[in-house]
Amino acid sequence: MNRHYHNLIQKLEEISHLSGIMSTLGWDQEVMMPAGASEARAKQIAALAGIIHDRMIDPALGECLDTLQNQALTDFGAVEHCNIREAKRHYDLETKVPKQLVQELAELGSRGQGIWVNARRENRFADFAPVLKRFLQLKIDWAQCVSPNMHVYDANIDLFERGTTMNEITPIFEYLKRELIPLIQAIQDQPKQPDTAFLRGRFALDKQEVLARQISRDIGFDFNQGRIDVSVHPFCGGSHPTDVRITTRYKDSDFIESLYSVIHETGHALYEQGRPHSELGDLPAAESLTMGIHESQSLFWERMIAQGKPFCSHYFATFRATFPEQLQAATVDSFYRAINTCKPDFIRVEADELTYPLHIILRYEIERGLFEGAIQVNDLPHIWNDLMRKYLGITPPTDTLGVLQDSHWSGGAFGYFPSYTLGAIYACQFYRTLLREQPDTEEAVAVGKFAPIKNWLNEKIHRQGRLYTPQQLVERVTGEALNPVYFIEYLKSKYSEIYGLSAS
Amino acid sequence: MNRHYHNLIQKLEEISHLSGIMSTLGWDQEVMMPAGASEARAKQIAALAGIIHDRMIDPALGECLDTLQNQALTDFGAVEHCNIREAKRHYDLETKVPKQLVQELAELGSRGQGIWVNARRENRFADFAPVLKRFLQLKIDWAQCVSPNMHVYDANIDLFERGTTMNEITPIFEYLKRELIPLIQAIQDQPKQPDTAFLRGRFALDKQEVLARQISRDIGFDFNQGRIDVSVHPFCGGSHPTDVRITTRYKDSDFIESLYSVIHETGHALYEQGRPHSELGDLPAAESLTMGIHESQSLFWERMIAQGKPFCSHYFATFRATFPEQLQAATVDSFYRAINTCKPDFIRVEADELTYPLHIILRYEIERGLFEGAIQVNDLPHIWNDLMRKYLGITPPTDTLGVLQDSHWSGGAFGYFPSYTLGAIYACQFYRTLLREQPDTEEAVAVGKFAPIKNWLNEKIHRQGRLYTPQQLVERVTGEALNPVYFIEYLKSKYSEIYGLSAS
Repeated sequence: MNRHYHNLIQKLEEISHLSGIMSTLGWDQEVMMPAGASEARAKQIAALAGIIHDRMIDPALGECLDTLQNQALTDFGAVEHCNIREAKRHYDLETKVPKQLVQELAELGSRGQGIWVNARRENRFADFAPVLKRFLQLKIDWAQCVSPNMHVYDANIDLFERGTTMNEITPIFEYLKRELIPLIQAIQDQPKQPDTAFLRGRFALDKQEVLARQISRDIGFDFNQGRIDVSVHPFCGGSHPTDVRITTRYKDSDFIESLYSVIHETGHALYEQGRPHSELGDLPAAESLTMGIHESQSLFWERMIAQGKPFCSHYFATFRATFPEQLQAATVDSFYRAINTCKPDFIRVEADELTYPLHIILRYEIERGLFEGAIQVNDLPHIWNDLMRKYLGITPPTDTLGVLQDSHWSGGAFGYFPSYTLGAIYACQFYRTLLREQPDTEEAVAVGKFAPIKNWLNEKIHRQGRLYTPQQLVERVTGEALNPVYFIEYLKSKYSEIYGLSAS
Repeated sequence: MNRHYHNLIQKLEEISHLSGIMSTLGWDQEVMMPAGASEARAKQIAALAGIIHDRMIDPALGECLDTLQNQALTDFGAVEHCNIREAKRHYDLETKVPKQLVQELAELGSRGQGIWVNARRENRFADFAPVLKRFLQLKIDWAQCVSPNMHVYDANIDLFERGTTMNEITPIFEYLKRELIPLIQAIQDQPKQPDTAFLRGRFALDKQEVLARQISRDIGFDFNQGRIDVSVHPFCGGSHPTDVRITTRYKDSDFIESLYSVIHETGHALYEQGRPHSELGDLPAAESLTMGIHESQSLFWERMIAQGKPFCSHYFATFRATFPEQLQAATVDSFYRAINTCKPDFIRVEADELTYPLHIILRYEIERGLFEGAIQVNDLPHIWNDLMRKYLGITPPTDTLGVLQDSHWSGGAFGYFPSYTLGAIYACQFYRTLLREQPDTEEAVAVGKFAPIKNWLNEKIHRQGRLYTPQQLVERVTGEALNPVYFIEYLKSKYSEIYGLSAS
């Protein structure tokens, strides 16, 4: 092996192993750590973060990368090129930013979180506004350091959805608005809404847990290489593809929320467990691709599969056997309709699949406006509420239920939101391709046969690691570029049927 | 603050924080980690261990220590001197051993474990003998590097029980043998043995867990700074005094074993939670002292408190309410006698407090013989069984139940065993002092008042960190040197009463 490449791999693998430890600490903190340990844990994390950072900005790594990039690497294949390219990008991201800016971002991220929590609780946007203004400025400065040739907002998006810019996103989101706003309006105007009363009640937590574990296992989660636990906010973490840890929370008033959250996180987990680490090592080429592609995998299972009729038809008997009292009078059909209701509401994370994109588009337009200077931070509550009225026909009664609801901005994560809806569009397009290539998919789901789906996702997406850009991957998998028409077709067809709308 | 001292503290705190992470990984591996992750975890641990080792042998640390030791440190107090002394000792331990020896020890430790597991399962001592021989040689070489002026076995003991040598241990152990062998014999000769039948049965695991948690909390375990979980072998781990994690295992055929194991580990945990980290920082002076002192804390609670009559009298009603069927006919007195039976058996970890020291003495004499060359590895099964007959009157039917039972030697931990019995002697002497200083202790225990005991241990032992040697600590706490007479007096008095022997 090329000596410089060998050297690179050793450095990258060490960083990967240390980052795996960091993830374990993060998981432990959310799931296991006693409350009193938070100060000690913060110091431990700071010590390890310092070491990882030192490794990432090590000038020897930079020299190694430069040498490799200047060689005519005729003997290198796609994997080696990918590792070099990704390592170089990370190195640049870490080294192009002056230390003072890095420190101020870290400090504001940690302080901003606390200020946001209080501001949200107290419904005082004015307390949070200075943090937001400062973060905006820092993220503009940051963008100019790392990607001086990109628009500052594009540079922020690029961190989460590599290679995707406003040029792609804006027309897609405009199209979604044109289609979804009237569709949601038409649904609200329907006098007959699905009955959801039987989804409320008391659902024993231990039964919910058994159910969630069974379904997660059924669709392919490998408990020999992962765990499911409880945390305040559901997430998918863990230290390695062989150590994937998902969490959920169980509410006794609602079994659908936790069940579908476990299915969602299982989608993320299957991506992680399916990464090509055994062939490619613990290296960038074996990493997951982008936030949007990751979200496409969770939404694929949550929406394309588990919110579909074949899935409901397969599991309804299990649901009713688990909660016989509550589901006595329900049927497969009424269950399917009840879990697929559309109703505009204030909170993004509780939104259904039809209204969810509008929550995202609103945030995207605000972020874009902030970075372009067309929107001022002080005007956000007002602008937020105007857009909510315009897109969903409702007005948040407080900023707590409006502009203050998400944690993202308190940590400086601008440009993250579009990934959620890009993920939904990817998921839909992937699913359409699966149906074309495996036409018996719905029949298989209806009898609980999920392995062909998991295998298809493994092969087409998970095992590709970071070899391609999201754009290339979508082309390779589906034969065409990202196309939101399938997403709209899917939503229109599904919800017209549920709500008895005349197909438009 | 002295610039060099400030520099030292920063380096030591970083090592402490990274070591805390290592402990979290160790706990996670035993308690949480999915089985499939073991290979990835091994790589993560190796990466972090390498970094910690680099920090510990950093020549800049060595220079800093030399500078500090060469200064007339008139402005330094006991804490600063302790930090410098302990850091220097660790630095020497890490740097005086040639890298090749360090590596061979690590490699053999990891390989030896697997060989021992198989040898024990297959009852084939011959498979394990080569590991033992090699470890012995390596540990002799190691001792000559780190402590060239000490006897090689003393240097090994010193690693676990600082400042204690064969000169102290041998006379103590000879005295214990003289007293205990005839006492145990007399007990075996008694026709009337306590009834223990009611301790066998089926004890629901969830009830055992509730009980164990309640008692652990009652005696002072702070769940805001710790957890209790389940693992294959009980241990006390965690990353920091604010993050102390104990484990146990629950058997449905025996609630005493897991309950007393939780009490034992709670004793270790109270030591950890009581360390003076908030005053002294995450530095050597705030560490726990030695294995023996640590064991004195676990045995203090397990034996001095929880195996005593006042404790049984306080909790018996709870035990009977928890397991009414099984304990129907039992009384406080019959319960106390049943949990304090003496019966020679083959396995150390299951031994009672009377026979336990003889298991230790046997191992001590074998280790000493091995290091002195008076005993050959190949003769061990034979020698082991002879000593078992001589000390406990029983002959192990297999090496699995004899010389192969403990894991210690498979990892090269020679010199560790004496700490267990030194701990028991410390515990007894501490308890005697407590009774002198707080004469109402037994009345307090009988009504479930444990705070004065915990506070006393906190003040006298836990908050002393590493400021003193074990010898100094015992003197300071009890007013005299370690004295095994109290241990023998306690055992004779207790067991004469239980077995109706005439006091000798």
